Amino acid sequence: MRPSRRQVDELRPVSLERGVVKYAEGSCFVKFGDTHVLVTASLEERLPPWLKGQGRGWVTAEYGMLPRATSERTRREASAGKQGGRTVEIQRLIGRSLRSVVDLVALGERQITIDCDVIQADGGTRTASITGAWVALADCFTWMKARDMFKGGEPMRDHIAAVSCGVYKNTAVLDLDYAEDSEAETDANFVMSGNGNIVEIQATAEKTPFSEEQFLALLALARKGVGKLIDLQKMAVA
Amino acid sequence: MRPSRRQVDELRPVSLERGVVKYAEGSCFVKFGDTHVLVTASLEERLPPWLKGQGRGWVTAEYGMLPRATSERTRREASAGKQGGRTVEIQRLIGRSLRSVVDLVALGERQITIDCDVIQADGGTRTASITGAWVALADCFTWMKARDMFKGGEPMRDHIAAVSCGVYKNTAVLDLDYAEDSEAETDANFVMSGNGNIVEIQATAEKTPFSEEQFLALLALARKGVGKLIDLQKMAVA
Amino acid sequence: MRPSRRQVDELRPVSLERGVVKYAEGSCFVKFGDTHVLVTASLEERLPPWLKGQGRGWVTAEYGMLPRATSERTRREASAGKQGGRTVEIQRLIGRSLRSVVDLVALGERQITIDCDVIQADGGTRTASITGAWVALADCFTWMKARDMFKGGEPMRDHIAAVSCGVYKNTAVLDLDYAEDSEAETDANFVMSGNGNIVEIQATAEKTPFSEEQFLALLALARKGVGKLIDLQKMAVA
Amino acid sequence: MRPSRRQVDELRPVSLERGVVKYAEGSCFVKFGDTHVLVTASLEERLPPWLKGQGRGWVTAEYGMLPRATSERTRREASAGKQGGRTVEIQRLIGRSLRSVVDLVALGERQITIDCDVIQADGGTRTASITGAWVALADCFTWMKARDMFKGGEPMRDHIAAVSCGVYKNTAVLDLDYAEDSEAETDANFVMSGNGNIVEIQATAEKTPFSEEQFLALLALARKGVGKLIDLQKMAVA
Amino acid sequence: MRPSRRQVDELRPVSLERGVVKYAEGSCFVKFGDTHVLVTASLEERLPPWLKGQGRGWVTAEYGMLPRATSERTRREASAGKQGGRTVEIQRLIGRSLRSVVDLVALGERQITIDCDVIQADGGTRTASITGAWVALADCFTWMKARDMFKGGEPMRDHIAAVSCGVYKNTAVLDLDYAEDSEAETDANFVMSGNGNIVEIQATAEKTPFSEEQFLALLALARKGVGKLIDLQKMAVA
Amino acid sequence: MRPSRRQVDELRPVSLERGVVKYAEGSCFVKFGDTHVLVTASLEERLPPWLKGQGRGWVTAEYGMLPRATSERTRREASAGKQGGRTVEIQRLIGRSLRSVVDLVALGERQITIDCDVIQADGGTRTASITGAWVALADCFTWMKARDMFKGGEPMRDHIAAVSCGVYKNTAVLDLDYAEDSEAETDANFVMSGNGNIVEIQATAEKTPFSEEQFLALLALARKGVGKLIDLQKMAVA
Repeated sequence: MRPSRRQVDELRPVSLERGVVKYAEGSCFVKFGDTHVLVTASLEERLPPWLKGQGRGWVTAEYGMLPRATSERTRREASAGKQGGRTVEIQRLIGRSLRSVVDLVALGERQITIDCDVIQADGGTRTASITGAWVALADCFTWMKARDMFKGGEPMRDHIAAVSCGVYKNTAVLDLDYAEDSEAETDANFVMSGNGNIVEIQATAEKTPFSEEQFLALLALARKGVGKLIDLQKMAVA
Repeated sequence: MRPSRRQVDELRPVSLERGVVKYAEGSCFVKFGDTHVLVTASLEERLPPWLKGQGRGWVTAEYGMLPRATSERTRREASAGKQGGRTVEIQRLIGRSLRSVVDLVALGERQITIDCDVIQADGGTRTASITGAWVALADCFTWMKARDMFKGGEPMRDHIAAVSCGVYKNTAVLDLDYAEDSEAETDANFVMSGNGNIVEIQATAEKTPFSEEQFLALLALARKGVGKLIDLQKMAVA
Repeated sequence: MRPSRRQVDELRPVSLERGVVKYAEGSCFVKFGDTHVLVTASLEERLPPWLKGQGRGWVTAEYGMLPRATSERTRREASAGKQGGRTVEIQRLIGRSLRSVVDLVALGERQITIDCDVIQADGGTRTASITGAWVALADCFTWMKARDMFKGGEPMRDHIAAVSCGVYKNTAVLDLDYAEDSEAETDANFVMSGNGNIVEIQATAEKTPFSEEQFLALLALARKGVGKLIDLQKMAVA
Repeated sequence: MRPSRRQVDELRPVSLERGVVKYAEGSCFVKFGDTHVLVTASLEERLPPWLKGQGRGWVTAEYGMLPRATSERTRREASAGKQGGRTVEIQRLIGRSLRSVVDLVALGERQITIDCDVIQADGGTRTASITGAWVALADCFTWMKARDMFKGGEPMRDHIAAVSCGVYKNTAVLDLDYAEDSEAETDANFVMSGNGNIVEIQATAEKTPFSEEQFLALLALARKGVGKLIDLQKMAVA
Repeated sequence: MRPSRRQVDELRPVSLERGVVKYAEGSCFVKFGDTHVLVTASLEERLPPWLKGQGRGWVTAEYGMLPRATSERTRREASAGKQGGRTVEIQRLIGRSLRSVVDLVALGERQITIDCDVIQADGGTRTASITGAWVALADCFTWMKARDMFKGGEPMRDHIAAVSCGVYKNTAVLDLDYAEDSEAETDANFVMSGNGNIVEIQATAEKTPFSEEQFLALLALARKGVGKLIDLQKMAVA
Repeated sequence: MRPSRRQVDELRPVSLERGVVKYAEGSCFVKFGDTHVLVTASLEERLPPWLKGQGRGWVTAEYGMLPRATSERTRREASAGKQGGRTVEIQRLIGRSLRSVVDLVALGERQITIDCDVIQADGGTRTASITGAWVALADCFTWMKARDMFKGGEPMRDHIAAVSCGVYKNTAVLDLDYAEDSEAETDANFVMSGNGNIVEIQATAEKTPFSEEQFLALLALARKGVGKLIDLQKMAVA
């Protein structure tokens, strides 16, 4: 029934390739099927002005799409002169999600910037970004530990990963690709941690409001998908 | 236990005052306690370029805060030269929520712009905005009906209203004010329709991930709060 | 003869409501007929860089119109990405006018920002803004005095208020509303102080140049109108 | 008494040199003492969108200062990414003033843009700009007449010129240079037409409000100065 | 002598991988050693306004660097709100170079946009971009030919490729990497065509002016390097 | 054969007028025929942040065109809100060229900004700007020496001047005017120093790639032209 012939609870093929950019303290090229995102983690020994002198660090994210990541060429935001609303929304989500599992005091007065650049988009770019960002961030922490930069213990408290679910042709399905996403009645993104708790839910009725029952079906699928993604993260960083 | 001495499932005093700006086709001054938002609905006989000639209309929203709506003066976005990420996120949410209950074909090839301007902010500006926006939009439709502008039947398919819930001092509470919001462990905004269905959920772990159980407690409170808000909308437009 | 049936030297009903925004150190909701402006005064213990260390403070103003303050919706300046020429001109006028009656040395090294946001516009928004701004500023000074913040004496040296006059259907009239303003041959804004002196004159031939005689008639009307406005300010702050 | 040893009612040496840029339909290099402004008039067979199809044309102005027109280098507005408030205010004044003596219907559906670029600034750049702009515009009309472009008669209805006056060391003086302007208690710009009428007054209390008597003294000086400037315009275009 | 131990006339390992982005009409992932650039060619059936109705098409280019393509993270241009001077200069060079070998009339009234996004930068990003852009453009033309889109014959008239040369430690060397580039006395970029002619030279004295003799040595190296690059292009598209 | 009837190796009449703006530390009004550029050099006792504390100064340049410097009015960059690509490219070239003959250590921790504003454009504005900029910079250094500001010896190490050459109707010609430039097959700008060395070459195939032979003919012409321009500089500053 799904255009990709996947089972309703089946993820696309996922890969998490580490160390893909030689300069970055951590990096991951993440693929969820035909959605490809390059994620880097950059450590800087400076903080945004409003955070100085508080004894803790910061993790933030920026997101972008290459102009031809999409079926039709999308205008380059640098040339348009500003980031669109969707971009801003996604990069805020990525940063917020990562911070929920980072001990900012243990990190110390430093900033880590996660850059997520979409090379090819086929639905789920934000969930792939978050899932890959965790790997890049973990590698950045490893890099820092090797240089003995943490006095206050391990800053990474848990895994997080993200997946989208939706109601497609009246059925709850896991990990929507673009063909499904553009037709779905409801679209929800779930960010969850390794201990099974919820970090963020963004659920939207694309066409008509949905019932609590439908929502709980999506949540159950998400839990299953995130569990598998976290297993893949564990294998990647092992 | 709550700073405002409210019960855990108690809304702040809510008022929905209609017809407050003489030029607008619909308007509502909405108060959720000390959160005050002026909402107007403006009808324009033109569409965004990408929507022309498709036989349907559009509902969109813009959001702003007056500089001194907040405890400390916030920089005016018009003078900063751009809308911040939070503003963009909120106005996209308001527009999307309203569209989920509007029949855009029945509306015809016209655009309605909902402007939500926060006069005073004490937590929950986005949920107050959505709740008031429904009233302003309903009045705009009444204005249009009086001019016999709908050929294809009633464009408003249902009520929507919104409320925030959160985990505050380890307890699920309804309709957070600023004092609670700034301390909450988890913050969730729910937009629901008159038939009890869900339009949008945005749930965020402010500090640490939350459990599914906690989330369901918030959802139950939200359902109760939205029910009361919709009753108030019905009284307002009666 | 006037669309509003007012006498040539008759102001619209004016009201000056204080204390309308709970956070601001001073605020005033000013109405000149259907022109409604919300004014707040915000005290900040910081100065623009070019003024630091000179032993004196600063009073500045920002002006904005809500999108549906006007008969047709006006584009939101924050979304357009810049303030228009008219906005800039008006906010410079408001700031300059207020500074002419403030002893900046007595104020001390602090900045007060006056925000004038037009809720509904029916002509004379800049004159209503200035008249209300004086009240908000006076309340801000009262707030500061209550906290013993002035070492160098009273910073407010006099009242100021403002009114527009114009030549409408060949007759000089006081306090133009929009219906008159859009038809007037000449339009002049006068800012005057409590001792009857002039703070600012901006007189413009909308269609054809005007004579000195006509100008003096406008000036006489303005003096009368400003006198009444200052009486109302005195009652408001009493 | 004046730093320049001029009489109180004495203009600086004024020159109006025509035809200084080979491409422009009209141009004038105007000097008021050490204030030097290059003005060009550019004819374009197109109109701003909001004016199309109304059977009349438009005259507008833009103003700029070269970065080193001033004693200290001023930041280039093109590199700052926007025009400052003072620039916007001045260019609106120039355009408005010129339109008050142009018959826009006689002009036909065309736009003339007046560019005023300050090469060297020593006070009075806006009044020099307006005075020179009239010459550039007159030459542009001559160019158009030579090509038989006016069906509806002569579009220029009268001369206009502008001069500043101020209260300097308690005395009313004509045509302030920078040394006077920066010390003046009151500063007023007057735009007047050839028949002795007023086009625009912008009078500002720089330090303390001024009396009606003082204002009338400035107006009398302005009338004298503008008379001389218009004589010079007549000689220039003869 | 060279940090990379290459011969003075030795290119870095070069690879040209085609078809790397599934949506683009042509694409190439080009590597000059550690400099990696993703190039896509996007066909659009529209033209910039100034080119409409002239019976010919357009080829243009945009260039960007991912924030962590560099040793230190570079600010994202989309978030800075504008493209820097270096970016603008490079993308103009790429577009101009490609147009020198394209028959725009044969292309027809269409635009091809070449996007060059630098994934990793180690010197020579502009020369790698041009060399890879030719491949992406050639593939785009092949795609179009397969759809019978050319009535007026083959639009590609010749190969072009580009390479940098420089005077490093007083010796002329080919294809500078970053370690050399940052130390070079002179830096020159050469774009040449398949028939051995010159498309563009940009030669810059980084520290002190250079002699004609030195320049001719660089030109000779460039000719050799470009010859090899064009051989590689031929193999890639074969 | 040339539209201006010049010999192939003949410059346009060149003049270099010094001291044209009273405030600037150095200035030059340079004319290459009908191309007129006003150049000023502004000394500031501050440095860009990235250069602080390194014991050396900086020379930078900004370039602009007055809107009616061109045959058709060009949009004012300050009002467009950004500098175009061509502007950025030219101002980077001017700054880079001047720095190649300045001893930045001898200059000391100061910045000199060269402003090149084109009053009238008839081809070759960048080469005229560089040639005049050298004169303005030399005068600025003279001004500084008179104030004994150089401890470390003379900062100006040599002359530089610039000229364009091109292939016009199949013949190499010197110093293209606009009529030639718009028709030329190849266009090259050469910046050279007083000792005959090369500072910068920018050669572009406007229509088709050019041969090495053609390029060498242009280079020979440039050498001749720059020699004459440097003679004129020497006479100007004598």
